[in-house]
Amino acid sequence: MSLYTIGIDYGTLSGRAVIVDISTGEEIATEVLEYKHGVMDKVLYNSDIKLPKDYALQHPKDYLDVLEHCVPEIIKKSGVHKSDIIGVGVDFTSCTLIPVYADGTPLCFNEKFALVPCSYVKLWKDHSSVNEAKKLTDHAKNKAMKFIERYGGNISPEWLVPKVMHILNNAPQVYAEADYFIEAADWIVWQLTDKQIRSSCTSGYKALWHNEDGYPDTKFFKELDPRLENLITEKLNAPVQSIGTKAGELTVEMAQKLGLEPGIAVAVGNIDGHCTVPAAKVTKPGEMLLILGTSACFMTLDERELDVKEIAGYVKDGMIPDYYGYEAGQACMGDHFAWYLNNLLPFSYKEKAKELGISDIQYMFMLASKLSPGECGLIALDWWNGNRALEGGANLSGTIVGMNLSTKPEDIFRALVEATAYGARMIIENFRKYGLKIEKIHAAGGIAEKNPFIMQLYADVLGCEIKVSGSPQAAALGAAIFGAVAAGKETGGYDSVIEASEKMGKLKDTVYKPDFENKKIYDKLYNEFCTLFDYFGRGENKIMKKLKI
Amino acid sequence: MSLYTIGIDYGTLSGRAVIVDISTGEEIATEVLEYKHGVMDKVLYNSDIKLPKDYALQHPKDYLDVLEHCVPEIIKKSGVHKSDIIGVGVDFTSCTLIPVYADGTPLCFNEKFALVPCSYVKLWKDHSSVNEAKKLTDHAKNKAMKFIERYGGNISPEWLVPKVMHILNNAPQVYAEADYFIEAADWIVWQLTDKQIRSSCTSGYKALWHNEDGYPDTKFFKELDPRLENLITEKLNAPVQSIGTKAGELTVEMAQKLGLEPGIAVAVGNIDGHCTVPAAKVTKPGEMLLILGTSACFMTLDERELDVKEIAGYVKDGMIPDYYGYEAGQACMGDHFAWYLNNLLPFSYKEKAKELGISDIQYMFMLASKLSPGECGLIALDWWNGNRALEGGANLSGTIVGMNLSTKPEDIFRALVEATAYGARMIIENFRKYGLKIEKIHAAGGIAEKNPFIMQLYADVLGCEIKVSGSPQAAALGAAIFGAVAAGKETGGYDSVIEASEKMGKLKDTVYKPDFENKKIYDKLYNEFCTLFDYFGRGENKIMKKLKI
Repeated sequence: MSLYTIGIDYGTLSGRAVIVDISTGEEIATEVLEYKHGVMDKVLYNSDIKLPKDYALQHPKDYLDVLEHCVPEIIKKSGVHKSDIIGVGVDFTSCTLIPVYADGTPLCFNEKFALVPCSYVKLWKDHSSVNEAKKLTDHAKNKAMKFIERYGGNISPEWLVPKVMHILNNAPQVYAEADYFIEAADWIVWQLTDKQIRSSCTSGYKALWHNEDGYPDTKFFKELDPRLENLITEKLNAPVQSIGTKAGELTVEMAQKLGLEPGIAVAVGNIDGHCTVPAAKVTKPGEMLLILGTSACFMTLDERELDVKEIAGYVKDGMIPDYYGYEAGQACMGDHFAWYLNNLLPFSYKEKAKELGISDIQYMFMLASKLSPGECGLIALDWWNGNRALEGGANLSGTIVGMNLSTKPEDIFRALVEATAYGARMIIENFRKYGLKIEKIHAAGGIAEKNPFIMQLYADVLGCEIKVSGSPQAAALGAAIFGAVAAGKETGGYDSVIEASEKMGKLKDTVYKPDFENKKIYDKLYNEFCTLFDYFGRGENKIMKKLKI
Repeated sequence: MSLYTIGIDYGTLSGRAVIVDISTGEEIATEVLEYKHGVMDKVLYNSDIKLPKDYALQHPKDYLDVLEHCVPEIIKKSGVHKSDIIGVGVDFTSCTLIPVYADGTPLCFNEKFALVPCSYVKLWKDHSSVNEAKKLTDHAKNKAMKFIERYGGNISPEWLVPKVMHILNNAPQVYAEADYFIEAADWIVWQLTDKQIRSSCTSGYKALWHNEDGYPDTKFFKELDPRLENLITEKLNAPVQSIGTKAGELTVEMAQKLGLEPGIAVAVGNIDGHCTVPAAKVTKPGEMLLILGTSACFMTLDERELDVKEIAGYVKDGMIPDYYGYEAGQACMGDHFAWYLNNLLPFSYKEKAKELGISDIQYMFMLASKLSPGECGLIALDWWNGNRALEGGANLSGTIVGMNLSTKPEDIFRALVEATAYGARMIIENFRKYGLKIEKIHAAGGIAEKNPFIMQLYADVLGCEIKVSGSPQAAALGAAIFGAVAAGKETGGYDSVIEASEKMGKLKDTVYKPDFENKKIYDKLYNEFCTLFDYFGRGENKIMKKLKI
């Protein structure tokens, strides 16, 4: 007899649920639901209220709809009996932040806040807190706070505290009335269990929390802004638990709505990328997961707390329990290519793609793949969306060097691909410089799934074999893995994430092996990339910061 | 009663003749003839002989056709009586080189050379002599030859000696049989007068000749290549005369063919750009002519022989008699924009241009002109065709810094325009650094004629008023001016180029005046341009030379 868990994965535009056989990892049935309100970045839903620049809001009702639609649907589709379903795991984009009342009701559900943008969910990619992030970063540096080092010296506007500061500055009544500011991942877990348990992953990577030191103290916040003195004790005051543990049990009410047995285990919430780590069989030091989508994310593990610089962050129990999870990112990956297609793709190429019956991007990748390493004669810096590792990196910008009158569109396109590969190598070599071993690379995400050309190019540039995640919905599979661990061995699940990953995690058979002749050429070009990287990125020439107004 | 001269101007694709009233400069009639054989850069005319890369050949018969068709035609069109035409002037692209026999017959007219590419005219833009130019430059530097300083430390592959070396290396029988290698300008004058008189302008700028020192000596050439020992005495052995003097008189035979009186004055030949100088009323120190076409050319005057670095060359009697003419160039101007249109113009923009009923380039200029200075957020280095001033500048390449996901096509297009303006300012400031005064700027060429947006942008970046040549065929007008001076006062012409320029030269009424608010912004951006220019151009980062294979 098989047992099953459910993974619920919340993305930027839709949520999905999957039901997984915990002995094989087989994904028996999946259901996706698009968010009815989508991403609100121009006007507020049901109103003519224009949203300020860089806002990206969501409606929490959409998240509940995903639960209530997708879970019953996969149970029906799979034919699995509910008594064989032993746990639920949840992952979410992050930091996706909801101001809520003491009982968990979002403020935006209250009629009086219906027209106040800051009462809604601030989606991870809401970038309106740039000034707040800078103020927070500067303050932390001035006070020589230890925590700032854990985040590569830089607090992102995407994270929890800058978002809360922005709400305080722009909608003080929302700040005043909110009993909690909570990550959407943790809020969903709260809805399922009726217990507010926060995740070591969301709290560690996005809310300045540390497994031993906790949050920064009240003095720090008071000096930052007197109104924030009691932020932690008043608005974030809830237990933080390690991922890989059980947050609570499914309530009777929720069980009824979802068609599950009440009392089954619900795992502590997780971030989508981090949840993918065990799904792609990365569970030990020396292994790295590379997620390649619109942006790129690098995640690896170590037993030790190493002071790695130029990193997004590192957190104990952040990816796999008991390990420190180290994370770094490239801000621009697929976005890069979309920009190219929208702004540089010439007429004749579009016509040609049409003639061949393929998409514009397929055509460009086809042409780019025909060039040999170095043939394009260009080097680009992949900073179209800034650089996440360097201090002040948000103001860095894209650069192409080497164009001449013979430079063709595919040369430029290939240079963009190569630039992201050099950027990836830079991150990995930085990890190694600070003592992390990177011996095995696994990849996930849309590009890893669909683009053998890019994957081979990465293998060549990195000089390392790359294996690809076996599930096209690896985050959801990861959530199901955490659900199985929350259930624990005594109810038929697993006692450790590592064990669950061995059984349920998946890799494709394909292995991208480096071509060392190509690597030799890329080694030289990578050196040139590094020189430009240092020159523009590390302060020798501050031009980019002056150009970006 | 009015008197007239004829100016004959040979461009890259066609030749033209104009008949000009010498008291007013009025251009009474013009006739253009396209070269039947055009530019041969793929296969040799009337054969299936493929031409090597970078060859650009022409057929000298086409030049004679221009004379025989255009001159009678303008006389007919103008209704001017031939007895009122007192002189002829000629200008040509340069160095456009013809191997000829002792009587002036081109070797390619000889049946036995009909299928030998090197026996034809090597057009100015034939770039096949890159290796020879490098060898010559290196040799001149090794031998610490004084002349190399006059050419900014760099001999261009476009010039006479590298072209001859290429012929020697690739078609030794052509070298052996040629009695002379001669500039097309001087060859036309020879055809008209039956006298081989070489021009101080073509010889000075393109053939290493100096008004006092003459050509480099036989020892220099022998050490360069023993076969070249007697190049000067055997193959270039003809008198050099200053521009602004009379080369000879029109032969009876030619007079008959052209419908002119025999015996009228024929001016010493000239280069097209240099001939434009007096046509656009640049005749004194402090004045500069800026020619803006597919590439850009900067020409100014001084009484003194100044050791100006990073220059194309300076020549006594090179532009206006008795002055040193200083020349510098930007390799990429209109070419830049053509590259953009062919390789980066997106589909939607092409559609929009069509919808508006304007050309692609008009549409791009329209959009670019709506941006304010600095708004594009980009800085480019205008080196798509290398840099003519810097040592090894042929290997430098185009660069764009500052792109992000919001960068639009018009931002990039405007950055290309701004880059050429910064490049122009760099050249002018370099002139000033070495003691040349630049107080007045006049402009000529297609872009100066037709693009008020670029001209205003140049005025703003340069911080200097710009006036535009009053003739759309300024080189031909210049040739007519030199024809009037060759005729001399005693036959009704002029005794000096300055006087002829005052009467016959022309400027439009439009004056582009700098906007000093814009200039302030451009000053800052120009500083950033200079930093990048030094970094990539002056050896700090040699990446470009490594990328260009």
